Amino acid sequence: MSFVVEMNGAQNNGINGNSVHHVSVRTHVSVNPAKLKSHRQRWNVRPSEMSKKTLNPIRAIVDGMKLTPNPEKPMIALSIGDPTVFGNMPTDDTVLQAVKEAIDSHKYNGYAPSVGYQKSREAVANFYSCPEAPLEDKDVILSSGCSQAIELAISVLCNPGDNILVPRPGFSLYKTLAVSMGIQVKHYNLLPEKSWEIDLQHLESLIDDKTACLIVNNPSNPCGSVFSREHQHKILSVASRNCIPILADEIYGDMVFPGCDFQPLAPLSSDVPILSCGGLAKRWLVPGWRMGWILIHDRNYIFGTGIREGLVKLSQRILGPCTVVQGALERILNDTPPEFYQGTISFLKSNSEICYSELSTVPGLNPVMPSGAMYIMAFEYPNFFRIVVTVPEEMMIEACIRIREFCARHYRPRSQDSHELDQ
Amino acid sequence: MSFVVEMNGAQNNGINGNSVHHVSVRTHVSVNPAKLKSHRQRWNVRPSEMSKKTLNPIRAIVDGMKLTPNPEKPMIALSIGDPTVFGNMPTDDTVLQAVKEAIDSHKYNGYAPSVGYQKSREAVANFYSCPEAPLEDKDVILSSGCSQAIELAISVLCNPGDNILVPRPGFSLYKTLAVSMGIQVKHYNLLPEKSWEIDLQHLESLIDDKTACLIVNNPSNPCGSVFSREHQHKILSVASRNCIPILADEIYGDMVFPGCDFQPLAPLSSDVPILSCGGLAKRWLVPGWRMGWILIHDRNYIFGTGIREGLVKLSQRILGPCTVVQGALERILNDTPPEFYQGTISFLKSNSEICYSELSTVPGLNPVMPSGAMYIMAFEYPNFFRIVVTVPEEMMIEACIRIREFCARHYRPRSQDSHELDQ
Repeated sequence: MSFVVEMNGAQNNGINGNSVHHVSVRTHVSVNPAKLKSHRQRWNVRPSEMSKKTLNPIRAIVDGMKLTPNPEKPMIALSIGDPTVFGNMPTDDTVLQAVKEAIDSHKYNGYAPSVGYQKSREAVANFYSCPEAPLEDKDVILSSGCSQAIELAISVLCNPGDNILVPRPGFSLYKTLAVSMGIQVKHYNLLPEKSWEIDLQHLESLIDDKTACLIVNNPSNPCGSVFSREHQHKILSVASRNCIPILADEIYGDMVFPGCDFQPLAPLSSDVPILSCGGLAKRWLVPGWRMGWILIHDRNYIFGTGIREGLVKLSQRILGPCTVVQGALERILNDTPPEFYQGTISFLKSNSEICYSELSTVPGLNPVMPSGAMYIMAFEYPNFFRIVVTVPEEMMIEACIRIREFCARHYRPRSQDSHELDQ
Repeated sequence: MSFVVEMNGAQNNGINGNSVHHVSVRTHVSVNPAKLKSHRQRWNVRPSEMSKKTLNPIRAIVDGMKLTPNPEKPMIALSIGDPTVFGNMPTDDTVLQAVKEAIDSHKYNGYAPSVGYQKSREAVANFYSCPEAPLEDKDVILSSGCSQAIELAISVLCNPGDNILVPRPGFSLYKTLAVSMGIQVKHYNLLPEKSWEIDLQHLESLIDDKTACLIVNNPSNPCGSVFSREHQHKILSVASRNCIPILADEIYGDMVFPGCDFQPLAPLSSDVPILSCGGLAKRWLVPGWRMGWILIHDRNYIFGTGIREGLVKLSQRILGPCTVVQGALERILNDTPPEFYQGTISFLKSNSEICYSELSTVPGLNPVMPSGAMYIMAFEYPNFFRIVVTVPEEMMIEACIRIREFCARHYRPRSQDSHELDQ
């Protein structure tokens, strides 16, 4: 049989893309290819190692549960951080109108740059810029939700074999993404007795020369805690003296209760390079729209052009978020009325107080009153659980009653040290 | 100094996610951590190897061009496959209305399953199902554009060190994604003299025991060619006897000129497992909306549950496409009038004929009349170039005039063999 031998292939010149193409010179040679190369004799298609390493721990729990729902009690789902499930927390009409206007404009149907429209990035930059941490459009990368923002940030900072520092308790996606990329995850402890501040000594003890990134999540999912300025200064000191860049997951930024102050991390530092991840999901109550962003803070030019160019390159893999939402972004950020944000926060605080006060008197539970986000943690060593406080008030109350009944039936007080043996 | 030693970490139990958490037992020990572990003494943040390996060849060309635009001739961009650029190819009003209805319904703002709403996947399955290749909702994965569909498909089928077979000339994203994942790219030749059919002997000669996937792109970007049934049967034979699964990039499916018949690949095979990638981008003229999908064809149960579960896991990394577009999908697919599709195709065919007939008489150029998609290829060995035919007709004519003038100034006829020396 006759087949083709390449004399001059195009695959090595790096530019055999759509527009320019070098045709190889080809020669027909008579050889039996079976003698030259091995090939499969039977089907053996297996999922890749990466797909096998992509583990979502929540799914692992949920899919493994064998529960028969109680027909007398409709289920109250307190597990998923989606504020839209029950219809009691709609987004603002301004947000919906902005997208409809973007559609009617007919301007936002084509490809945007993979990092997002310049005007949309500028809108995000202006919204978050402050004198201590000024931002321009070039400092913003739009992404398909905050999940992709976190994926891009980890992907650009870490190589396989590196490690990242993530909070415990913490959002499971950090580990899901890192492990799938061959990056080791080291958990630093949060201290419930200190309103979930970071155990800084533990944090620093984990750092080694393979530590590529520190993830700081504030306000915290799942703790609902909000770090003080002082505590954030201490976190920055650890990062600074160990020369570790920070991924600041601030998707719950500004979702803090009255009397509490949300302080973004980046304006507090002049040296530590920070990728701050956020998006529309939580504060604007549209998690399904998949509109996220990375704010690049690098006032000391430590990321330099390398990290910026790396983020741009990685964004070209799947080409950014939906353009109609991008087209609406400027109006969403600038025109959503303050009353909308305040209404969300009042509701979350009220539900948190109901939940906290109900569970505080339940034997076996120690809830920690949150300061922001959408969650409350209740625990007794060795177990914690997270409660989502976005459900309608009457369901919140009913859920607390059920938890109280459950604990009354099942709680057995332990001796002070028994938990050490019972894991 | 005192720091924390973990006696019983949670990171190894695989379930320290949001909902369940085991607190480690901790002991404070006095040690100088500097003596135990090395850590960085100065900043050294570098972009990851993966980001450095993510190369977009089109950008490499465009960014490297040092051109001063001719002030007397406004630029006519024929390089980007975005049909929306000039406003002459708007999407259908049904498509826009469907999204506005999805917004008004208030039902599509929360998280969808990471593979997409069941109802939206069902709509895609019904749209593409046929007796020879039936599809159900479970056979559809929605993705953030066809780019992510291709990324998911490559990610689930290939490990680093494997190789994939991609067409030359071909769409550059296959290589961009594969190389970034450490997957080798082998280019098989398309034959311009045979309307860009695959050189099947060359294709088969490239297969070895590390070949994880064959990418077949039909209709072709950049060639505008459409494979016959007979040719596709031959492609399937190569895949079948070598046991290689196929990634069928059919994003230009059904965008073929009158008299030509687009035949999806999967219904022609009963054994070769096929992941067919598509989306709204091209046929519905909304590439920015980032709505893509994978159709899983596995009638001989070769992918089995492994590949399906792997795709689901990988989709959980960034959680699917924008929910309002998902919410509109059923109506977009079912209610867009046939006249819209026909109008697009008539225009593309007319522009292709103009371009083909103009360039056919240009010394130095050999255009190949396309049968579909949005492109026409013109070449003389050793170089090809792709022309996008979505621009308004008068610009298409003007562009051809300029190309003719350019060739008249610069073309030097070659001897028959000179191209072999001139690369």
